[in-house]
Amino acid sequence: MEITGNIATIAFALATLGPGLGIGWLVAKTQESVARQPEVASTLRVNMLIGAAFVELLALIGFIVFILAYFV
Amino acid sequence: MEITGNIATIAFALATLGPGLGIGWLVAKTQESVARQPEVASTLRVNMLIGAAFVELLALIGFIVFILAYFV
Amino acid sequence: MEITGNIATIAFALATLGPGLGIGWLVAKTQESVARQPEVASTLRVNMLIGAAFVELLALIGFIVFILAYFV
Amino acid sequence: MEITGNIATIAFALATLGPGLGIGWLVAKTQESVARQPEVASTLRVNMLIGAAFVELLALIGFIVFILAYFV
Amino acid sequence: MEITGNIATIAFALATLGPGLGIGWLVAKTQESVARQPEVASTLRVNMLIGAAFVELLALIGFIVFILAYFV
Repeated sequence: MEITGNIATIAFALATLGPGLGIGWLVAKTQESVARQPEVASTLRVNMLIGAAFVELLALIGFIVFILAYFV
Repeated sequence: MEITGNIATIAFALATLGPGLGIGWLVAKTQESVARQPEVASTLRVNMLIGAAFVELLALIGFIVFILAYFV
Repeated sequence: MEITGNIATIAFALATLGPGLGIGWLVAKTQESVARQPEVASTLRVNMLIGAAFVELLALIGFIVFILAYFV
Repeated sequence: MEITGNIATIAFALATLGPGLGIGWLVAKTQESVARQPEVASTLRVNMLIGAAFVELLALIGFIVFILAYFV
Repeated sequence: MEITGNIATIAFALATLGPGLGIGWLVAKTQESVARQPEVASTLRVNMLIGAAFVELLALIGFIVFILAYFV
């Protein structure tokens, strides 16, 4: 069997699963909400950006983990 | 078979799954709620930040765990 | 095969899954409830903090378990 | 393969999954119920604390199991 | 491979999954029911305690199983 590689690659891949779905979900609900109450669109956009930043951070740390595990 | 690596990378990856979905969920519901009652938007945002901080902490501890397991 | 590591790291990762989703869930419903009855927002926030503390404790004990298993 | 560790760590991690989701669920429904009938908020909070204590106990016994299995 | 441990610890962990979710569920529905019919709140609480006791017993027997398997 000649499978080669470092499991850090798989690790990053898994690290995108939760955040990918999570950001998708929160943006989806944001859109629905903007459509229902267009006058609060700016409040909703700020919330969306805060939420997405929280979640995106998780996956970005996953990238740092990959870099550390692969090169250090 | 030449697969290499440290399972601490996989561990961090798994540690993002619950929090990624959890924060996505709570922000999603926040948006829906802001759209329904725009006048409590600030209360909802404070709750959202408290909740996201609680959950984000879990994943950040996951990163500390990775650092400890990989470098210590 | 040169995969190394201590499964205590995986253990902490798994310990974030339930709490991450659980806190996300309870905060999500809190938001929905604040939007429905803004006048009980403070009662709801106290409940949210109590619930989040109960659940967060589980993951924090998970971190203690990691520390004990890794360094003791 | 140089993976090391004691599966008691995994055991505690699994022991947080059910309780983490369970407490999240019961607090979530408590919030919804407080919003529907604010005048029974105190009854609902007592029920919530009883329920959370029952469930939390399960995970705390899981910690005792870890301590027994790891150090005794 | 140097993973050590006794699977009795995993067994107890799995034994908390169902009860943790189960008690969470029954308390959740109790809360919903109290909110719908506040005048039967005490009846609902007694039922909740009976139900939680039944379910808790399962996990406590799981702890006895662990003690027997580990020390006897």
